[in-house]
Order: sequence, then C-alpha cells, then structure tokens
Amino acid sequence: MLAVWSVLCLFGIATAQPPRGPLVVSPQVNADKTVTFRYLAPSAKEVKLSAQFEKAPVLMTKDGQGIWSVTVGPVKPDIYPYSFQVDGVTVMDPANVAFFPNERFKASLADIPGDTPLVHAMQDVPHGSINYEYYPSAEGTTGSLVVYTPPGYDKSPAKKYPVFYLISGTTDTEETFFKVGHTNLILDNLIAAGKAKPMIIVMPYGNIAARVAEQKGGTKPADPTVRDGADAISRAKAFEIDLLTNVIPYTEKNYRAIANRESRAIGGFSRGGGQTLRAALGNMDKFAWVCSYSSYLSPTEMDKSFSQIGAKPEATNKQLKLLWVSVGSDDFLYKGTVEFMDYLKAKNVTFKSLITDGGHTWMNVKKYLAETAPLLFQ
Amino acid sequence: MLAVWSVLCLFGIATAQPPRGPLVVSPQVNADKTVTFRYLAPSAKEVKLSAQFEKAPVLMTKDGQGIWSVTVGPVKPDIYPYSFQVDGVTVMDPANVAFFPNERFKASLADIPGDTPLVHAMQDVPHGSINYEYYPSAEGTTGSLVVYTPPGYDKSPAKKYPVFYLISGTTDTEETFFKVGHTNLILDNLIAAGKAKPMIIVMPYGNIAARVAEQKGGTKPADPTVRDGADAISRAKAFEIDLLTNVIPYTEKNYRAIANRESRAIGGFSRGGGQTLRAALGNMDKFAWVCSYSSYLSPTEMDKSFSQIGAKPEATNKQLKLLWVSVGSDDFLYKGTVEFMDYLKAKNVTFKSLITDGGHTWMNVKKYLAETAPLLFQ
Repeated sequence: MLAVWSVLCLFGIATAQPPRGPLVVSPQVNADKTVTFRYLAPSAKEVKLSAQFEKAPVLMTKDGQGIWSVTVGPVKPDIYPYSFQVDGVTVMDPANVAFFPNERFKASLADIPGDTPLVHAMQDVPHGSINYEYYPSAEGTTGSLVVYTPPGYDKSPAKKYPVFYLISGTTDTEETFFKVGHTNLILDNLIAAGKAKPMIIVMPYGNIAARVAEQKGGTKPADPTVRDGADAISRAKAFEIDLLTNVIPYTEKNYRAIANRESRAIGGFSRGGGQTLRAALGNMDKFAWVCSYSSYLSPTEMDKSFSQIGAKPEATNKQLKLLWVSVGSDDFLYKGTVEFMDYLKAKNVTFKSLITDGGHTWMNVKKYLAETAPLLFQ
Repeated sequence: MLAVWSVLCLFGIATAQPPRGPLVVSPQVNADKTVTFRYLAPSAKEVKLSAQFEKAPVLMTKDGQGIWSVTVGPVKPDIYPYSFQVDGVTVMDPANVAFFPNERFKASLADIPGDTPLVHAMQDVPHGSINYEYYPSAEGTTGSLVVYTPPGYDKSPAKKYPVFYLISGTTDTEETFFKVGHTNLILDNLIAAGKAKPMIIVMPYGNIAARVAEQKGGTKPADPTVRDGADAISRAKAFEIDLLTNVIPYTEKNYRAIANRESRAIGGFSRGGGQTLRAALGNMDKFAWVCSYSSYLSPTEMDKSFSQIGAKPEATNKQLKLLWVSVGSDDFLYKGTVEFMDYLKAKNVTFKSLITDGGHTWMNVKKYLAETAPLLFQ
C-alpha cells in the first residue's frame, strides 16, 4: 500500500514527473452509444465486466500494456451500476469517480447520455443545492441528512417551500438518492420546465437502529439484511419515530419549510417504500402525499396495522392527495406489489400506479421520481 | 452481477427475508485501539490488509464462513486510508461506507477515535453545512464545488464571512477535503473552541483542463499524471484562470463573502499546494493568506515567474498576512520544500513553517489544516 501510495502521491508533486504507467480511461461512451470499459491488471488471469445493462458478466481482453477492455452496446441511455470481476473478485472501476454509496457492496456508475438530455442529466438550467447536514437523533446520537434546496432558495429569504422526505433502500445510505438517483438534477430540470413545484427534498439514512447501535460504543450494528418479523418491524418503527420526532422538526426549524400535512410528501424505494407506507398510513395527520417505489405492504399487515385505511376509504381518499405505487414487471417484488394494488382497489382506496419494464433497479427509481415529483403539492 | 444484484436487492424487500450470508463488520475498532478488519471471500487464496498505518501489507486469515480477518495495532488515533489485496487485486472494504474520493485509486477509511475527541472528530458542537454546488466554468462547461458554511450561517442573513479557497491534490476530487480531510468537522470544532474565525471554505476540483476536455465531447482527458513542464504549467494556469474568473465571482455572488484580499485565503495540498503558491504569488492583489501543505515551488520557478516576491521582500511581507509552508519529514517532497523554505529565508521573505513526522498523507493534511485555520483572518 505504501508503495502504491508513494507512486500515487508522486502525482501530487508540483514539478515535472514522468507518468506512472498508462492512463486508463473508463468508462468511455462512444458516439454510437457503445461503451468501452477498461481496467489495468497486467497479472490478472480473467477480467469480466458486470453491468446492470448486461444479462451476464462479459469477458474483457488484455492488451500489451496489461489493460483489459471490452466495448459493449449500443446501450440504452441511462445511468447503470457496474463493476469488474478480476479473477473472481468484484472491484469498482478505479478510473471512474462516480460511485454507488452502499453499506454492503461497492459499484461504479456508467452514465450513457441521451441524444437529447435525459431528465436526470446535467442541463443548462438554474441549479439547486445539495446540503449535507447533521441533526440530533435518537438516544443522543447524531444523524446525517442530505437535503436538496431548489434554485433560488438562498435568493428568496422570505419564501417557504413544501418538503418531500425521500428514503432509499436497504444497505443504501443517505447519499444514494443524490449520487445514484440524481434527485437534484431531476428536480432542477423539472422545475426549469415548469413541471414540478420548487420543493425541499430531505434524504435521511434508513437504518436508524444500526446507526444508534454503532454510535453507542462501537457495538456490532443490527444486521440490516435480517428480516425476521419482530426485528424488521422494530427497526421500521425506530426509523418512523426518528423521522417524526427528529428529522421533521430539524428540517422545519432549519429550513424554510411549510409545516403542515398538505405540504409534506414522503416517498421511498424498496425498504424505504415500506418505511414510507408505514410512516404515512400510520400518521395520516402528518403526510398528504405518499410515493412507494418498488415496494408494498402485505394485505395481512394492512389489515393488522392499517385497517382504517380500507375501512374508511372516503376518509382515506379525502386525506391522501396522492397515493402512488409503482414497480417494474421484472421486479421480484412485482407480485407482492400487484397484490397491494389489488387490495387498495378492493377497498376502494384511490391510488395512482405505474408498471414499467425492468426490475428492482435505480434506473426505475429515477423514472418513478421523475413521474411523481410533478404530481406533488399541485 | 445480476445474480449479485438480485441478492442485494432482496435486502430491500420490506417483508421477512433470511439473511444473505454472514454480516461482515469492518473495520471494528476495539477498546484497546486495536482494529479488526474483515473481508468475505470464501474462494480467495490470499487476502492482505494494506493500511497507511502499516509499513507493509498484513496477511489475513480465513474462518469457517469464508470471512478473512486480521486484528492490528494498537493504532494511533487518526483516519487512515486502507484497502484489501485479494489474490493481488486491490479492493475497497465492501462493509465500510467511508471512502477516499480519488480519480485513480479506490480506498476505504478507518477512523480510530481518540480517548478525548480529536480535532477532526464529530463532537457535540454547533455544525456548519457542506454544500455541493455547480458553477459556470471555462468554455461553457459546468464545474463542481464543495462549500463549507460555518454554524449559524443561515441564521444570520446579514453577516458576511471571509473565504478560504482550499485545493486538494492530484487525482483527488472536490470531495476529498470533505470526505478525507473532515474540513467541516475540523472547522466546527475550532470555531466552537473560539480558536478559528467563522469562515466559508470553498473546495474546488483541481484538474480543470481535464474536466473541460471531458465535457467537450467525451474526449480523452489530459493525463493528470503527466508532468512535462509545458503541459503542467498550462494546466496549472487553466486552474488559476478558472479560480479567478469563475470560482471566486460565483462564490462572492452566491455566498455572503467579504470580497477583498484581506478576507481571501488560499491553501492546498500537494499539486493543490503548487496551484496555491502560483495563484497567490502571481496575484498578490487577490489573496493575503497563503497555505502550502506538503508542496513547494522550485527556486528556478520562483526566480523565473515570481521574482518580485524575493526582490521586494518588504512589500511581500507587508502584503502577505500569512505565508505557511509545512511538510512531513518522511515526505518525498521534504527536500524540495526545505529548499523552498531556504529560498524564502535567503530572500528575507517572512513565512511560518511546520515540519512534522510522517509523509505525504492526509493524516498530515488534517494536522496542517487544524494548525493554519486558527491563523486565518486574525
């Protein structure tokens, strides 16, 4: 490591130095939307590309400099997670700064631009700002939030804004909706086009119980992947309590937020979708706009914990300005999500739904965010 | 990858699921400051830990679950970059969210807390905010800035602040001073202790020429590691021009910055230190406070490009409120930096210097930042 480091540190020298080995450019998007991936590994025996736009890993070939490469596609314009499998070991792309924040795996991001800019692309429009914040959280711990403020927020000190609480999935972090979801760019573009209302978006970390355990003396955090009922529900509850007693009050104290249910939306992906539905349906006085991306609650849990939703559909429909449920047709949660939709239908609960191609991916999350943001606070 | 992904996606399901293999906790800091690192790789033949607190990679051993681990130390409290070498392949720690933003290598960060909190540690003090901003940059491109605003910035809409422009090293990104340098926490703690003045800190990306090349049609960016004189100086110049014509005007338009030389500081590490010295000594009307961390300019370049600094030391000393030069005794730039100090001495140019243990590392960068921030704008 020190050797590697010294070499890398040499790059820092402000005077003349020869290059330290070939420069690897990866990924390289070509004019025809094919993409070339490269990885420097002179001594590796086999290197494969694993990308979410490929059904299976793709073999790469080594050149005389020890750079493995492969050109794939044309690839449908979007942002895709990928990594390399180097003699069976999964690694990020060292040449690519764009990464997927996650607690359990590391992946890089390949951004294939459209011929006309996609809704998540950097465009020449006014930009909002992303703020990293600390807030006083459960049991004296400090929590982290990533907060989007819309263009002009700092220039209009009297204006107040509605707030969208947006929760990522299991093993994601509070950064994932920013770094992978491009939440800020999607909103910048929709607001510039007059399609979405200027809003504040608060992106919390979903696994409060684990963070509390970690800060309380470095004890082993709860396994976020363990899904036995009791633990899952207690951890979902820990998140809901932190959201209501810490995150929302911090937001409404420190940002110019409109503090009423009609100006609060909540949405989430995967586990965050479950947390969204539980927090919203269990606190109808707090949220009027609800978005579940690739997630659902089972009819059993609905009847057990949220029976009033279906028992008094008129009241539910009056209170909820939006109940959104979307899922991909290849999502392993497709069946459960359709059951949830059928449950709502049978109970005469009004909801909007969208079923897209694709699976349980952030390509779909971006699509759902772009579809729902224009519906909020209208 | 799809297989891996489906498994990972399963973590997202909001209903009961069995865990997908053992939970790996890494790094785990033990009470005696030893640190246990773990990596799941049942089929790997050899796994080593490479950490900046170790002189050489340390062999790890595999348990029955296929988890490789090693306990090292006690380790001196600090934040250290590390990675694993899995059958010779360098990988980040999949279990650790803390990462080292860099263009050429990927590393994780191990944070060993002190018995009393270190200056870069999260403490129970008022926190400033980190803002990610886009700004109009050279040739119609869009640049990125990471900006620290001090505690209370949003609560005192009339107050204006001095600005510290802080530049990271070659292959670092605009995120490195935040994620690795803990600039925000260091300032939060120094301000709370009354040791540093509240200030705005603007952290730009150092390789403007490469970013422009990249945005101008995905052409191959300039190799940041090529250090042949002409290219190096033209790229240093491109940064200086962007700083003066784009970054500073954007900052002073969009933040409550005091816009005069006595309220502008500039500092940087490694390549950023060279950029700092060139931008400051070449624009004495713009900056009054100058910090070079682990970098220098050669006597030859000083005489050629900045002769007035040594030719009129009284004027130089009157204009510069601070000229700081620091380096580690094991830094491969130690000799050049001492030559630079000797040059300044011989020319009767007043400067403050600090020579520490250690090398060209971010452990030293944090130390230099904590030493210099209290000197600025006083």
